[in-house]
Amino acid sequence: MTETNRRIVLRRRPVGMPVPDDFAFEEVPVPEPAEGEVVLKHLYLSLDPYQRGRLSEAKSYAAPVPIGGVVECRAVGRVLASRDGRFAPGDVALGGFGWQTHSVMPGRQLLKLDPAEAPVSTALGVLGMPGLTAHVGMSDIGQPKKGETVVVSAASGAVGAVAGQLARLAGCRVVGIAGGAEKCRFVIETLGFDAAIDHRAEDLAAALDRTCPDGIDVYWENVGGAVQAAVFPRLNDFARMVMCGMIAQYNDADPPPGPNLGPVVRKRLRIQGFIVSDQWHRLAEWRALAAPMLRDGRLRHREDVVEGLEATPAAFIGLLQGRNFGKLLVRLPE
Amino acid sequence: MTETNRRIVLRRRPVGMPVPDDFAFEEVPVPEPAEGEVVLKHLYLSLDPYQRGRLSEAKSYAAPVPIGGVVECRAVGRVLASRDGRFAPGDVALGGFGWQTHSVMPGRQLLKLDPAEAPVSTALGVLGMPGLTAHVGMSDIGQPKKGETVVVSAASGAVGAVAGQLARLAGCRVVGIAGGAEKCRFVIETLGFDAAIDHRAEDLAAALDRTCPDGIDVYWENVGGAVQAAVFPRLNDFARMVMCGMIAQYNDADPPPGPNLGPVVRKRLRIQGFIVSDQWHRLAEWRALAAPMLRDGRLRHREDVVEGLEATPAAFIGLLQGRNFGKLLVRLPE
Repeated sequence: MTETNRRIVLRRRPVGMPVPDDFAFEEVPVPEPAEGEVVLKHLYLSLDPYQRGRLSEAKSYAAPVPIGGVVECRAVGRVLASRDGRFAPGDVALGGFGWQTHSVMPGRQLLKLDPAEAPVSTALGVLGMPGLTAHVGMSDIGQPKKGETVVVSAASGAVGAVAGQLARLAGCRVVGIAGGAEKCRFVIETLGFDAAIDHRAEDLAAALDRTCPDGIDVYWENVGGAVQAAVFPRLNDFARMVMCGMIAQYNDADPPPGPNLGPVVRKRLRIQGFIVSDQWHRLAEWRALAAPMLRDGRLRHREDVVEGLEATPAAFIGLLQGRNFGKLLVRLPE
Repeated sequence: MTETNRRIVLRRRPVGMPVPDDFAFEEVPVPEPAEGEVVLKHLYLSLDPYQRGRLSEAKSYAAPVPIGGVVECRAVGRVLASRDGRFAPGDVALGGFGWQTHSVMPGRQLLKLDPAEAPVSTALGVLGMPGLTAHVGMSDIGQPKKGETVVVSAASGAVGAVAGQLARLAGCRVVGIAGGAEKCRFVIETLGFDAAIDHRAEDLAAALDRTCPDGIDVYWENVGGAVQAAVFPRLNDFARMVMCGMIAQYNDADPPPGPNLGPVVRKRLRIQGFIVSDQWHRLAEWRALAAPMLRDGRLRHREDVVEGLEATPAAFIGLLQGRNFGKLLVRLPE
């Protein structure tokens, strides 16, 4: 191949909030594919909060990105060359890897996408990892029942938007928490939630009392911090906390204490975490469920697209600061 | 009837640890039974940590004992008189009520006991509420699997002893935490746990590292406080915390903060509370399972019996201080 791969590597481990200098750009030749491998030119990179965890050495559920290594993400790409019979040049596939313009992957790790089924970028958002996350957490832990009150934090984000809509479809009253008036409008007008709380402008406790007069039965936890502290005492008996993430502390070296767990006994609460990568085998189930809902408008989504590999570090830092609005993607020129 | 009921009422709400003056003794005539009612002379009163919650006005899962009201407990009694065809004088039944010598109850609320099946006092302990508590929490939340490590706090107590034995029967390595060398010996030698930790004499963190070299898969929470703080960071991926009680803080007006919940996401933890009174309908299931194991020695138990109604307040205060050793009962003279 004569292609050049432009990529972003981890130059040093961020301390607290990452800064652009934590990353470095490199150019390397794209290697020839081995038997069974496919060369992808990336069309979209997915930026997600979990990637912050990979930049640290702290013990987690996945290995950290090594210093000098390509920063991890999932990507959608077009096949440039293939030594796997299932893929031909021009095909589009989910399963590329990393903050870079190209990747060479075993064909068996890729999922071929049909652009007629849905825009291929949705394989990184509503029909991909974030959507599957919402589906798994709501099905397995949240288990929303008709008439219950469900509160979703980071409600305009890629996961929260789907989680809340699934609860609406289950017949729940759904309250979204988001940062800023525009996101709150989106949560109500586009996603169809019953109410929204602007955590930047409102007193959380008072806003929860106003929007959840019957208490809270399911809390979708994306953020931790002050939102968790305000929600916890308002959980009803038998409430479920779906522990998806706690982005508010991803940059903290020394996380603050949490709630006293006495109410967990008294109210028979269930607080349960999950990691979507344990559940990849359910992606086909989710896509079969969600793609028709996406086409007929029962499921809405929003993408926040930045252009070009150079924009990646700043967009990622913005994500950790809550500055994205919808599923954050980097689009690379074809 | 010419019988006199001697009873203990709540004189004032305890502040922190109860003291004897929070209670008062009274004598009242035993009323005649109405149609369908049964008069019981109590043989055994059950003293349990949950009763502390009933003495406070704080919102809980059950109404508080009113000032001047009889302090709540479950009891086993002998039928003195009956206007329910299912009970005859001389029968023994579970379902009496309160820190008192007699009660008059609807027969439909009573369970007739067969003294040949097991000593009737066990209906308040291993074959009663504490045993059912252990069964429900382990079956529904703990779900111990062969080869896992299970840590049980208050391991020599009425609930902990059964919880740990059920985990042993499931093929787990079981470590009990108890207060004092004598209780720790009992936990190992009588209950058959693999190891015991004396929380009064040992550094909890070091002792857990020593006794749980492969981490902790199930934690049975009876106590909260320092034990919870030492166990939490040692939970393995997919560990379950069975939230049965937090006796260490039952007398605290202002409970301390709990653990930061970040690991709940990362380790996919499940922290779930339950209240056995939601599950009374499973008592027959538990008795059918446990009574044969009690007879053939697979299930061991220990009772700590104090004599006479006058001993009740001090025994209850001792329970809250961890001074009982086994299921705490008050025996009343026939």
